[in-house]
Amino acid sequence: MATSQLEEQHAGGGRDYAEPAPQPFLGSSELRRWSLYRAAIAEFVATLLFLYVTVATVIGHKRRQDEGRDGEACGGVGLLGVAWAFGGTIFLLVYCTAGVSGGHVNPAVTLPRAALYVAAQCLGAVCGAGLVRALNSANFARHGGGANVVGDGYSKGAGLAAEVAGTFVLVYTVFSATDAKRSARDSHIPVLAPLPIGFAVFVVHLATIPITGTGINPARSFGAAVVYNQPNAWHDQWIFWVGPLVGSAIATLYHEHVLRASALKALGSFKGARQ
Amino acid sequence: MATSQLEEQHAGGGRDYAEPAPQPFLGSSELRRWSLYRAAIAEFVATLLFLYVTVATVIGHKRRQDEGRDGEACGGVGLLGVAWAFGGTIFLLVYCTAGVSGGHVNPAVTLPRAALYVAAQCLGAVCGAGLVRALNSANFARHGGGANVVGDGYSKGAGLAAEVAGTFVLVYTVFSATDAKRSARDSHIPVLAPLPIGFAVFVVHLATIPITGTGINPARSFGAAVVYNQPNAWHDQWIFWVGPLVGSAIATLYHEHVLRASALKALGSFKGARQ
Amino acid sequence: MATSQLEEQHAGGGRDYAEPAPQPFLGSSELRRWSLYRAAIAEFVATLLFLYVTVATVIGHKRRQDEGRDGEACGGVGLLGVAWAFGGTIFLLVYCTAGVSGGHVNPAVTLPRAALYVAAQCLGAVCGAGLVRALNSANFARHGGGANVVGDGYSKGAGLAAEVAGTFVLVYTVFSATDAKRSARDSHIPVLAPLPIGFAVFVVHLATIPITGTGINPARSFGAAVVYNQPNAWHDQWIFWVGPLVGSAIATLYHEHVLRASALKALGSFKGARQ
Amino acid sequence: MATSQLEEQHAGGGRDYAEPAPQPFLGSSELRRWSLYRAAIAEFVATLLFLYVTVATVIGHKRRQDEGRDGEACGGVGLLGVAWAFGGTIFLLVYCTAGVSGGHVNPAVTLPRAALYVAAQCLGAVCGAGLVRALNSANFARHGGGANVVGDGYSKGAGLAAEVAGTFVLVYTVFSATDAKRSARDSHIPVLAPLPIGFAVFVVHLATIPITGTGINPARSFGAAVVYNQPNAWHDQWIFWVGPLVGSAIATLYHEHVLRASALKALGSFKGARQ
Repeated sequence: MATSQLEEQHAGGGRDYAEPAPQPFLGSSELRRWSLYRAAIAEFVATLLFLYVTVATVIGHKRRQDEGRDGEACGGVGLLGVAWAFGGTIFLLVYCTAGVSGGHVNPAVTLPRAALYVAAQCLGAVCGAGLVRALNSANFARHGGGANVVGDGYSKGAGLAAEVAGTFVLVYTVFSATDAKRSARDSHIPVLAPLPIGFAVFVVHLATIPITGTGINPARSFGAAVVYNQPNAWHDQWIFWVGPLVGSAIATLYHEHVLRASALKALGSFKGARQ
Repeated sequence: MATSQLEEQHAGGGRDYAEPAPQPFLGSSELRRWSLYRAAIAEFVATLLFLYVTVATVIGHKRRQDEGRDGEACGGVGLLGVAWAFGGTIFLLVYCTAGVSGGHVNPAVTLPRAALYVAAQCLGAVCGAGLVRALNSANFARHGGGANVVGDGYSKGAGLAAEVAGTFVLVYTVFSATDAKRSARDSHIPVLAPLPIGFAVFVVHLATIPITGTGINPARSFGAAVVYNQPNAWHDQWIFWVGPLVGSAIATLYHEHVLRASALKALGSFKGARQ
Repeated sequence: MATSQLEEQHAGGGRDYAEPAPQPFLGSSELRRWSLYRAAIAEFVATLLFLYVTVATVIGHKRRQDEGRDGEACGGVGLLGVAWAFGGTIFLLVYCTAGVSGGHVNPAVTLPRAALYVAAQCLGAVCGAGLVRALNSANFARHGGGANVVGDGYSKGAGLAAEVAGTFVLVYTVFSATDAKRSARDSHIPVLAPLPIGFAVFVVHLATIPITGTGINPARSFGAAVVYNQPNAWHDQWIFWVGPLVGSAIATLYHEHVLRASALKALGSFKGARQ
Repeated sequence: MATSQLEEQHAGGGRDYAEPAPQPFLGSSELRRWSLYRAAIAEFVATLLFLYVTVATVIGHKRRQDEGRDGEACGGVGLLGVAWAFGGTIFLLVYCTAGVSGGHVNPAVTLPRAALYVAAQCLGAVCGAGLVRALNSANFARHGGGANVVGDGYSKGAGLAAEVAGTFVLVYTVFSATDAKRSARDSHIPVLAPLPIGFAVFVVHLATIPITGTGINPARSFGAAVVYNQPNAWHDQWIFWVGPLVGSAIATLYHEHVLRASALKALGSFKGARQ
């Protein structure tokens, strides 16, 4: 979720400062191609690890809970532990892969046009969830396979709204943490970048696990649905693609047209006034 | 909760060093006005997200708890998860909005004179709590709407004292984290600033959730009261304005007249002695 | 727990580099005196806030637990929340007071000779615990007042050993985080210093709450004992002074004579060999 | 887990940039020997503290759970607290010992050839677990002694796979955090290094405590097995050596041959193309 990809998206806008190219020593087209494949491999591995750690935590948590004995139920990591697993793992993976592929791990961050990244993320998600099923397939099937579904007592509209809002929080944080203009001004931005992104995932899970199990990442929802492969997981699947992409688009508009572009536009008119 | 606003409040005191203007490229009055509106929008959005995430967490937690089944009750995020939701979200929002509006998200930090900020915060708080009610209004009403009230077994005086003490901890941390004089001396100050502010909110919630549900932020208490709109939420509302504002004032006095101004005064007399 | 005090203790050793004086602009004896009083006030306030937040968390936790209803029992912050309250608050207070008084908040860190600091810490601890009792004195007395006692099933020797080991972990971390020599070499040291100190307190609480409730800070144990004032709290009190002071002394010896001084000694003999 | 050792392993590869020697002032062979012993002592003490804190937390957690009373069972730190104890303590020890010995605390990080380190780690682990047994030996024996065994419902193959995957996550993070090439490019790398390593241990525990209790560190598994000394702990012991070493080897291959070496190779062919 770091600089390279996101900055390329910004590059079309009329900015008055130049982004440093992230890997200036790679010039030939052959090199660029390898660099892209390497980034796709890194996205694949990172999304695999993400699904492996988080789905294993969800299954372990639900197994304890369903055993129904008090001490055992309390002995699990709890929903708070589940939220930490998602947030902590994203912190880790953004930290580790930011320099290689940008550390997206999430199509809602990558945005539709980067097809290779999204394919690598979805494939990694399927493999990560598959690894958890391989460890104990009976547990996996019995406890929902970590798949996202709209919770009891919530409408599909509420689930969609929760996915939009949750992804807005995440992508708004990603933009704030990787905005090169802010980085230069506020010294804490580049140092802490992976931490607030991890915390964004953590607090959104605290808020929306009861509503949708929390997707805010189409690859995560897709990978779990493929491996679990039950009708209820596929039935709500569209919510976990439409919600995150809409939330991501709104966060992009908010960042570009309210917080950021406006300052530059204002700066432009100020420059004009001085001439 | 970062530099711009707080520093303006300090600017009246007799300091021997100059603050750098945070946005020197904005000179015309038109620009200043847009910059102010943009900051108010950022405060509105940030407070909306704050109430959305935290009230949704509170409602989800109480719903699990009230269902009375052991496994389910333990399966929620717990009061510890509630405290993390408040602390983690504040860390996030201070991190994201510090460069735009100062990242206050709280009238007790903004102080009364910045009327536009406080209005944006209260409006954002109402919208954030309203978004949670829209997802499932039956749950919202049944589980107290995340509104602050004085807990069973505690007097109104105890509730007021807890709000004063809790806000003192928060505002004392904000001053410590954003004091430009210290920033220059201690390299960890600017880098970590959003983190201790988030932790201040977290530990105050651990301590005072049983006493008042923890306000320490009038916008948060006001937004939840407006959307919940039951007599008991309005009955104690004054505590969640008087307490935070008194706690904030005491922290300001402690910072200015014991910790900070005294050093400068001492420095002044030292300079005099040398001449 | 930061530089000023600890460095003074180091200053007697034979080091080949000079420490920068922490406040070079304070030169006259009158100034030094005010600076010392100010530091003592800061230690008093910080220790008061430490006891207030942590004892309130302990009382709230025990109250939930003793009510015996399942949902309620699980609804508290839990022992994990108690450990976070201690660790998070120490992170906060070290962060906030490091620049004023060194941020000790603990006689085991200050060491016996700094009598004024220890007096301010013990007085602050009494006031902080007193503030919690003032909020609801019935709860306070019924739930043990946050006082440290050796737990059921553990001998006094085990309690003493746990206090020695826990304080060793804390003071070892404090030395590592504030060693000026390391700071220059490893860029993460000064930036993160308050965070590992907070985590040291957190993990030691996770390990030793069942054994002694975790003291590792004589002021904390003393303040709670004074306000609770029951025989069992006074009976074990010596353990919470002897244990921390022995653990602190061992950590000092380990740091000075194994990790640090030896390197300098080795360096000395190397220099000799080159001549 | 920091620079010195790991970089020495990398030094054999064909890199086009020079590592700064970590301690340039130590030149004579005598000095090197003392430096090595000092590092071994630091590994011994760190691994002792690691086992002491984490095994004490595990025993305290299981004691609460087995007492079978609801409030008591919920009153413990929970599995989430256990995961925090492992992750938080590793954060601490990497932070504290990185400058002295590299802060490995784990043979899977040190790799087989550094025999002295591994010996010190295993001896420290035995002493740390022994210290917990000394505090209350009845509790220790009754609650499994913190030893790693494959959990009910999981095959030995699943346990081995979980150890491989968990150690892969840890060692992949260690390489990312200590890669000197990345450090120069991404300013957050050296500052945050100990934090993601601690989080890696934390989230792997969340995921794999139900499967194997989580080893991912042969010294930790060995120390607990020696002190507990029951057949079931020794029966699965090989899994906690083979799994971590295989996971570590795969992470090394992935880092060297996919993420890192390839970029350098690509850079090499690019340089060739320019000539």
